[in-house]
Amino acid sequence: MAFSLPPYTQPDFSKTPFVTSPAAVFQKVEKPGVAPPDYHATSIYPEYIQVQKGKWRLLKNSRMDCVVVLEKDGKLKVKEFRHLKVGDAVACGRRENGEDGIFVHTRGFEFPAHVMEKFAFRTRLTRETSFSIDYDELYDLLEYEREKGFIVWVLGPAVAFDQDARLAFMGLVETGFVHALLAGNALAVHDLEAAIFGTALGQEVYSKKMAPLGHYNHLDAINRVRALGSTAEAIERDLVKEGIMWAVIQKGIPYVLAGSIRDDGPLPEVIGDAYTAQDRMRGLACEATTVIALATQLHAIAAGNMVPSYKVMGNNRVRPVYFYTVDMSEFAVNKLANRGSLTARSILTNVQDFVVTVERGLRKRSR
Amino acid sequence: MAFSLPPYTQPDFSKTPFVTSPAAVFQKVEKPGVAPPDYHATSIYPEYIQVQKGKWRLLKNSRMDCVVVLEKDGKLKVKEFRHLKVGDAVACGRRENGEDGIFVHTRGFEFPAHVMEKFAFRTRLTRETSFSIDYDELYDLLEYEREKGFIVWVLGPAVAFDQDARLAFMGLVETGFVHALLAGNALAVHDLEAAIFGTALGQEVYSKKMAPLGHYNHLDAINRVRALGSTAEAIERDLVKEGIMWAVIQKGIPYVLAGSIRDDGPLPEVIGDAYTAQDRMRGLACEATTVIALATQLHAIAAGNMVPSYKVMGNNRVRPVYFYTVDMSEFAVNKLANRGSLTARSILTNVQDFVVTVERGLRKRSR
Amino acid sequence: MAFSLPPYTQPDFSKTPFVTSPAAVFQKVEKPGVAPPDYHATSIYPEYIQVQKGKWRLLKNSRMDCVVVLEKDGKLKVKEFRHLKVGDAVACGRRENGEDGIFVHTRGFEFPAHVMEKFAFRTRLTRETSFSIDYDELYDLLEYEREKGFIVWVLGPAVAFDQDARLAFMGLVETGFVHALLAGNALAVHDLEAAIFGTALGQEVYSKKMAPLGHYNHLDAINRVRALGSTAEAIERDLVKEGIMWAVIQKGIPYVLAGSIRDDGPLPEVIGDAYTAQDRMRGLACEATTVIALATQLHAIAAGNMVPSYKVMGNNRVRPVYFYTVDMSEFAVNKLANRGSLTARSILTNVQDFVVTVERGLRKRSR
Amino acid sequence: MAFSLPPYTQPDFSKTPFVTSPAAVFQKVEKPGVAPPDYHATSIYPEYIQVQKGKWRLLKNSRMDCVVVLEKDGKLKVKEFRHLKVGDAVACGRRENGEDGIFVHTRGFEFPAHVMEKFAFRTRLTRETSFSIDYDELYDLLEYEREKGFIVWVLGPAVAFDQDARLAFMGLVETGFVHALLAGNALAVHDLEAAIFGTALGQEVYSKKMAPLGHYNHLDAINRVRALGSTAEAIERDLVKEGIMWAVIQKGIPYVLAGSIRDDGPLPEVIGDAYTAQDRMRGLACEATTVIALATQLHAIAAGNMVPSYKVMGNNRVRPVYFYTVDMSEFAVNKLANRGSLTARSILTNVQDFVVTVERGLRKRSR
Repeated sequence: MAFSLPPYTQPDFSKTPFVTSPAAVFQKVEKPGVAPPDYHATSIYPEYIQVQKGKWRLLKNSRMDCVVVLEKDGKLKVKEFRHLKVGDAVACGRRENGEDGIFVHTRGFEFPAHVMEKFAFRTRLTRETSFSIDYDELYDLLEYEREKGFIVWVLGPAVAFDQDARLAFMGLVETGFVHALLAGNALAVHDLEAAIFGTALGQEVYSKKMAPLGHYNHLDAINRVRALGSTAEAIERDLVKEGIMWAVIQKGIPYVLAGSIRDDGPLPEVIGDAYTAQDRMRGLACEATTVIALATQLHAIAAGNMVPSYKVMGNNRVRPVYFYTVDMSEFAVNKLANRGSLTARSILTNVQDFVVTVERGLRKRSR
Repeated sequence: MAFSLPPYTQPDFSKTPFVTSPAAVFQKVEKPGVAPPDYHATSIYPEYIQVQKGKWRLLKNSRMDCVVVLEKDGKLKVKEFRHLKVGDAVACGRRENGEDGIFVHTRGFEFPAHVMEKFAFRTRLTRETSFSIDYDELYDLLEYEREKGFIVWVLGPAVAFDQDARLAFMGLVETGFVHALLAGNALAVHDLEAAIFGTALGQEVYSKKMAPLGHYNHLDAINRVRALGSTAEAIERDLVKEGIMWAVIQKGIPYVLAGSIRDDGPLPEVIGDAYTAQDRMRGLACEATTVIALATQLHAIAAGNMVPSYKVMGNNRVRPVYFYTVDMSEFAVNKLANRGSLTARSILTNVQDFVVTVERGLRKRSR
Repeated sequence: MAFSLPPYTQPDFSKTPFVTSPAAVFQKVEKPGVAPPDYHATSIYPEYIQVQKGKWRLLKNSRMDCVVVLEKDGKLKVKEFRHLKVGDAVACGRRENGEDGIFVHTRGFEFPAHVMEKFAFRTRLTRETSFSIDYDELYDLLEYEREKGFIVWVLGPAVAFDQDARLAFMGLVETGFVHALLAGNALAVHDLEAAIFGTALGQEVYSKKMAPLGHYNHLDAINRVRALGSTAEAIERDLVKEGIMWAVIQKGIPYVLAGSIRDDGPLPEVIGDAYTAQDRMRGLACEATTVIALATQLHAIAAGNMVPSYKVMGNNRVRPVYFYTVDMSEFAVNKLANRGSLTARSILTNVQDFVVTVERGLRKRSR
Repeated sequence: MAFSLPPYTQPDFSKTPFVTSPAAVFQKVEKPGVAPPDYHATSIYPEYIQVQKGKWRLLKNSRMDCVVVLEKDGKLKVKEFRHLKVGDAVACGRRENGEDGIFVHTRGFEFPAHVMEKFAFRTRLTRETSFSIDYDELYDLLEYEREKGFIVWVLGPAVAFDQDARLAFMGLVETGFVHALLAGNALAVHDLEAAIFGTALGQEVYSKKMAPLGHYNHLDAINRVRALGSTAEAIERDLVKEGIMWAVIQKGIPYVLAGSIRDDGPLPEVIGDAYTAQDRMRGLACEATTVIALATQLHAIAAGNMVPSYKVMGNNRVRPVYFYTVDMSEFAVNKLANRGSLTARSILTNVQDFVVTVERGLRKRSR
């Protein structure tokens, strides 16, 4: 069954309360990084701002828990609080039904009935939930997105610890199913250690044998790449000849490695400042039409915060953004599922098996 | 890499303390089901009893936490306490090094170096452990066991909730990798509901749609099979035409369904008495050379209690018994891993993915 | 804030569809243990059967997933399928709104607004949920129930592994907060080993030191109690002088120990047959006004199956039955929470801390 | 039982191989942030460097996975790779037994026998492990540390979600058991929202009622504090009158709030750069004699990386540093326990109960 986008219905602004509602009020920022008290905070949903009476404009590149700034060129920009400058005009009002000139459109997409129904009954997703159809729907989606969308993968370090999972992810990159990568220092370090020494934290990634003095491999991998100045240079010089980072860099796929307080090193590419990293991640998140987050609570939640439930495509067509979380723990996936979006899905399993299964499933269908 | 059994080395009874140790003392049971105070309790390891001075006999069909009875025909039998009869002669003495005429042989098998090493470092198995090699070793093992061993599967209900997992398990049965099945009422009930109505607990097993009045399907499936008198009859009459129980019964594979206090029904085949069920399970456990327990703490621990780490084959050759636990939770697999046997392995993942991956992996190799 | 029961509103049978609905149809059982195809299955809610036109009778001692039998003396009895006898008259019809003479009353209780609201938003209970108010409400409830209700505790073995938890539970028994105990062989065995040897599975319950040959303590405890014939006799002869079982037996509190396939022994009091054990458990479940299940998935689900959401008191007053589950894992508590009852509550924590905290909290209030 | 420090035994440098081993080799850094290829990496243990033949010097303020730099003033400094400057002299050699002039002293402390034994058998810590003694030993330890040590708390956001836990932590601050706090933006934001609005993420922290428009409270709390410029100012102006941050700031307790990619805001005090935050955290970690990490994998691992297993006190006395992790999941605590230190302890429970229990336990003893 081929994938098709659900239709999107614009709000009917010729109806109540829209016809009588005023244009949105914009108030000025008086202190950098501080919004006016009555600011409107964005959601994951499509939102319309009545900039002038009768002119409802849809937000592009939205992001939840931000504010809406009317730029001098007349465009609306969704900004994090920390980016507010003195004089920025911030949309204000907290009634989201249009009465303040702001409308949060929670029911724009017409999802197939079975999706609606599944969600009604899947409030308690567990390890015993059946996932066969989720895999099949994911294959359909990814084949569609490979051609017409932008697939962002968010990887926790677990993917780099297993040989088959690393190979499978390289296969996904090779076959065009990876358009961007978000991860942390650890994912890249474990992956590079595997590429250079065949180990992760000193243990051979396939045989699990401990290498002699293997606990140095982790730090040596970082030190060698730092000595060369970049992972790209390590690839250039044949220090790194395979792996997740190798595949991504060889293919020219954009990526962000965000630093954290538990990092060793870090690798040269890692962005140490959390908020600069957020900005860079959001740059890719704005492109995303499907996000798949594997075994990382921190990065999955961070990405989840940045990705709205919809994207305005080049032709002004509005489509949903799909967000998958794959993790072993009900706790982790439920945190994400709290977004409440029909496009947020979770699969409870070991990400090693997930990556291997997805790569095999897609390969089989392409034959 | 083909699988081969590790060599087994008999103890050298010509050495100290064996040469000077007395024959084991056997004391009589005075009350049914009660052992003499100084009884020797069995372990998972090969154990030798010096029945007469110089005659060390290896226990067959052992089981941990039992006692050893010298039968009237001179044979040694490993019995649960509850089966002790007045007059039974029970081996006594608690020094396990041979000084009491009882020797627990903890180091009989020569495992390959890499297995030994892996176990030294794998004391903390987690979801981040690499499992690629475990799958490959399991394929080798199962291909060997299909011809020369006896593979016992222990299934929790989760396997019956997912369409792909059910099909994969049917494939494993079809291709000869299932020699016995241990499970509870719930596994069979969910599987039969899926076969009869296409649902599990009222939800379609593939699409996850809720069937109208679907909550009755569970009870209706039980009631219909009870009306027919047996699952075999339900198959005979074409009420059940696919599924785990269908495959197992069609192939004449022995199985035990043990009852529990949370059962509805139960199905006619379910053994309500926990200890009768134990006895029946042990009958199959005594045959087992490999056990694979999926997503069931209760049945996995029960089977683990019954299966020793070795089996004496027809030709008196001693081989190890392999025991795999597959579960989502570190807690569950660690409970089993406490056995301390080198032949106990665990894979942390969703059993749906596990069954599908194993079936595909074996099929691919057989081409 | 003192606890008070929420008011219960009877259905208004003078309204549609009740006034026009027929008396319930009862069909005869033709095969033992098999219901007529169109049987009505019971729920956790109060249910009314229109036995004769105009006579709606409320089910007493209900239990979900059973059938309703009209006894020869005119009484309605809620029976498990396996207890059906040839000739039993079973209520039939699957419309639960009264049109078949059967009405399932899902909204009988008027819970306080804050309870309703909490439940609306607490669909995703996690370890990060705040539990302060749950403890306080539990103290209120237990003080009420000590005088006017019947408090059933369902204990997993974890409670017996910890010294402070054992002492705290003994305190709860002593102060009258325990009216019945449901558990398995393991809970009792670990508790008796602690009473006799000061260890659980060979490890001292307070200091965690391993006792010499401590792995025998477990089996020795069972063997000694079996030799004496009963736990009561072991108490009588001063073999057992403290502990959970000691407190319960000394106080004459009714209990059921249900056997399972993972049992050693078992202890003399353990009921080996799962369905006999169910019947005995249901005997106590029918008395229950509050159930608290600690760290046991099997027994908690079994008890949950048996306990309806309401109880008809002596004066025909209808009150809710409260059901608490305490466990470490979101998976376990969510399984129970699926009952959908407003009276099912969960607390996610280690049961050792829970028991200690509750006992201290109640003691402090009683000063 | 009062707490006492275990004695520490210096290595006997008059023995082999120390007497024949050369002075450590120091090699120059040639590129900023890159160590010489043969660098020695530090561990959590006390380490001695033979700076000149016969002069073994103990590292102070060590930190695992760093390098040792011989400063121009002759002092040894343990530096992260990223802080290496061209010309820094780095200790080289990878034999840790002294033969390279570097000795890692893994057995310096004489722990009581029962601690050694417990650790031998506690390799598989689970929710069923008994924790009574751990609480009692922790009370002893904390009373000692309040007078003579430096207690660092590492808090995940869960502590701020619960009313009783917040009050208990405030009590610990008040009674002097908190000497430093490490946390992230989220902990502080939830705590300040609770202080300002009585809610966390819009839900009342005690009653769990949802506040009207409550989802704004989170962002409003941040925005208001940002408007005032600091949390201290928010306290000064009586916007914040209770809570964790209030208690800590009022008492002048040092703290570090580290930023992360999932932050909203952030609060003014949050350090956005991960490595600056690391440096600030290490400043406090160097003071630490006991660390208690609650419900935070990221911050607990980060702190664990920074805290060695020993501290050199003012009088050159060497004492252990104790490290507690408290979490709900075996996975989380096992990650920390992999340090292999006898001073790393874990308690598996909900941190709400932990904080409340510890505060009550300490208060009771102080009466």
